[in-house]
Amino acid sequence: MNGIEEIVREQARAAKEASRRLSVASSAVKDAALRAMADALEKNTAAVLAVNVEDMKAAEEKGTSRAMLDRLMLDEKRIRSMADGLRQTAMLPDPIGEGEMETIRPNGLEIRRVKVPIGVIGIIYEARPNVTADAAALCLKSGNAVILRGGSEALRSNRVISKILAEAAENAGIPKGALQFIDSTSRDAVGVMMNCTGLLDVIIPRGGAGLIRRVVKESAVPVIETGAGICHTYVDAGADLDMALSIAVNAKTSRPAVCNAMETLLLHEGVAKEFLPKLAAAMREKDVELRGDRTARTIVPDMAEASEEDWATEYDDLILSVKVVKNLEEAISHINCYNTGHSETIVTSDLSRAHRFQREVDAAAVYVNASTRFTDGFEFGFGAEIGISTQKLHARGPMGLNELTSTKYLIFGEGQIRA
Amino acid sequence: MNGIEEIVREQARAAKEASRRLSVASSAVKDAALRAMADALEKNTAAVLAVNVEDMKAAEEKGTSRAMLDRLMLDEKRIRSMADGLRQTAMLPDPIGEGEMETIRPNGLEIRRVKVPIGVIGIIYEARPNVTADAAALCLKSGNAVILRGGSEALRSNRVISKILAEAAENAGIPKGALQFIDSTSRDAVGVMMNCTGLLDVIIPRGGAGLIRRVVKESAVPVIETGAGICHTYVDAGADLDMALSIAVNAKTSRPAVCNAMETLLLHEGVAKEFLPKLAAAMREKDVELRGDRTARTIVPDMAEASEEDWATEYDDLILSVKVVKNLEEAISHINCYNTGHSETIVTSDLSRAHRFQREVDAAAVYVNASTRFTDGFEFGFGAEIGISTQKLHARGPMGLNELTSTKYLIFGEGQIRA
Repeated sequence: MNGIEEIVREQARAAKEASRRLSVASSAVKDAALRAMADALEKNTAAVLAVNVEDMKAAEEKGTSRAMLDRLMLDEKRIRSMADGLRQTAMLPDPIGEGEMETIRPNGLEIRRVKVPIGVIGIIYEARPNVTADAAALCLKSGNAVILRGGSEALRSNRVISKILAEAAENAGIPKGALQFIDSTSRDAVGVMMNCTGLLDVIIPRGGAGLIRRVVKESAVPVIETGAGICHTYVDAGADLDMALSIAVNAKTSRPAVCNAMETLLLHEGVAKEFLPKLAAAMREKDVELRGDRTARTIVPDMAEASEEDWATEYDDLILSVKVVKNLEEAISHINCYNTGHSETIVTSDLSRAHRFQREVDAAAVYVNASTRFTDGFEFGFGAEIGISTQKLHARGPMGLNELTSTKYLIFGEGQIRA
Repeated sequence: MNGIEEIVREQARAAKEASRRLSVASSAVKDAALRAMADALEKNTAAVLAVNVEDMKAAEEKGTSRAMLDRLMLDEKRIRSMADGLRQTAMLPDPIGEGEMETIRPNGLEIRRVKVPIGVIGIIYEARPNVTADAAALCLKSGNAVILRGGSEALRSNRVISKILAEAAENAGIPKGALQFIDSTSRDAVGVMMNCTGLLDVIIPRGGAGLIRRVVKESAVPVIETGAGICHTYVDAGADLDMALSIAVNAKTSRPAVCNAMETLLLHEGVAKEFLPKLAAAMREKDVELRGDRTARTIVPDMAEASEEDWATEYDDLILSVKVVKNLEEAISHINCYNTGHSETIVTSDLSRAHRFQREVDAAAVYVNASTRFTDGFEFGFGAEIGISTQKLHARGPMGLNELTSTKYLIFGEGQIRA
């Protein structure tokens, strides 16, 4: 532990030091650096692909799943897309310095609150090497130093990508040390990061439930929890059932492995008989396995029985649990009991029930007559996304550049003292 | 542990359940409840004073310090002031429901972000029984359920005050369970609270450095760190020295035990010879012990020598460390090295140095030509304060009602699905 502890702490100290200077860097310098990083990445495509082949080979030998291998794999197109992401980030408005409030107090003190960088952001992520570029871009643009800790499968790829990006950034005037990569697969490295209070200002874990639970439980550095998504669609009595079917199929099948996909469909008993057979047919066509409660199975007998565990499971797969409820109250109670605070939707024609659903459901994004799949920084118009917060502090829902800022009060006086 | 664990978790579950209904309570109901709580507290003054006498007696027998006894003591005036605080909170604007942004996306989705309550807030505090009423008022007004965990010295007083407040709130229509008091002095109770993820949404510790360190380190529930204050005053070359003296004396002596009081004075070498003797005389008149660096002691020889530890100490007492610096850069470096991210001030006549100080000093509140003592929710015009955040996530600086809210995205569609 001692070796890795000293290395990580030294990186965190260097990042803190760099973050001081980066926090007052101009937008022009930051944007030029992002464009230089994009150019450097494209110029070094061959070098990145060469080490990615090694990562892929090692992963294959370990018997890594096909889905995981696809996430790990880079090609020219994916590298170009990483570079484009860097250039697009350069074009977004710089949030730093934006005024949030201003007041002149009766005693003459002028108080302003403005956006400032958070400082040093730790990102702990798994598999996809493109996160290395995406996260670096968003952190630098918002004036933050960043410490990246990727998954072991992608170590070689991440090492080379982060080196290319850090060198290009430094040559373009970004303080040395602002972009750090932890070149170790040791779990201890994560432990050290979580104890770097005073050096790291926040840790954002991006990955599976196990990683997120560990960081939330153990970290002394503040954490923004992201990504867990048990999302529901509730089909109300009197809903447009064609719309309901279209939304349900989209929410479940357009990309089943992501956090804003539907896991449970709730159905008002008044429309169950008409809707369930249509739903079952449509889902079967998409190879979705259905698991229903007792009432649902009396209508569509050939579905498996849903257990208590099903309501609490994020399948991230082509499986859907279905429950028939008596009314809106029961739907809301079920959601507030089992959801993860991510995204929920009601399909309804009744305005007052739509409003009640939005008021009483406790989640980051509560929809009326739309698919939960829209919960995403790009779809919300933020132009970027570092993750989707499922906690209530600091940021809730998709996090873009604004969510990577803190604030500072700037106060001008002329000698005021307090009575 | 088992007994207390079950009790605290059951309280947390009840608070969570109540928070669902409280989150949609109208401002009228919440404000009426706050006024009823104030009336009930005044009506039961005798009962509160009777148990406070017992707390005081027990504390005296334990040899508790005079300062601590003063914080613990209640009298008719202090109870009236608690009741007035409840009534004033009722008169503040309700933050819940306030719109923060609104956009209609190209696909027609209408996205709004509005303020919602956080949910269940845990407050862990020491000594002063008035926090029981203040914290309950701010949490209820912002639609949050609250779990209060006071210090052992004030157990009897807090128990009776919280019972009076909870009953009055419930009779006025606030959901039962929204105001919980942990009736135990066991340290284990704090441990259980810190592990109530999914039930508690945030813990705010208010107390000494030891308590705050423990909660930051051990809590799995998100924490807002408050109250540590190593605050600096930097007197620049060419500053108005009368103003500098007035600000320094105010920042150090107007209330030395609070977090926004000055602990270290930094002095440009160009004004040290003229300013230091005046400072020493003024501080001595207020019984302030001075501890200086080498240069300071060559000018005012009869001050103790400041050690490295002094720069990193929050005295909360009539002690001031003094350091002579070469220039603004050295002052900023010293502050960014030793401060706790609370409040810092420069006394200067030079506009560009004032701006540079505000830009580069990393703290919640950065002043020009005013005392750091103004960092306070009431002085900032928030009408209330639950604490002063010294971290960068969620809230930074004084926290009023707005800082006790989270957000929710409300999205209206007409059948949109994602491509």
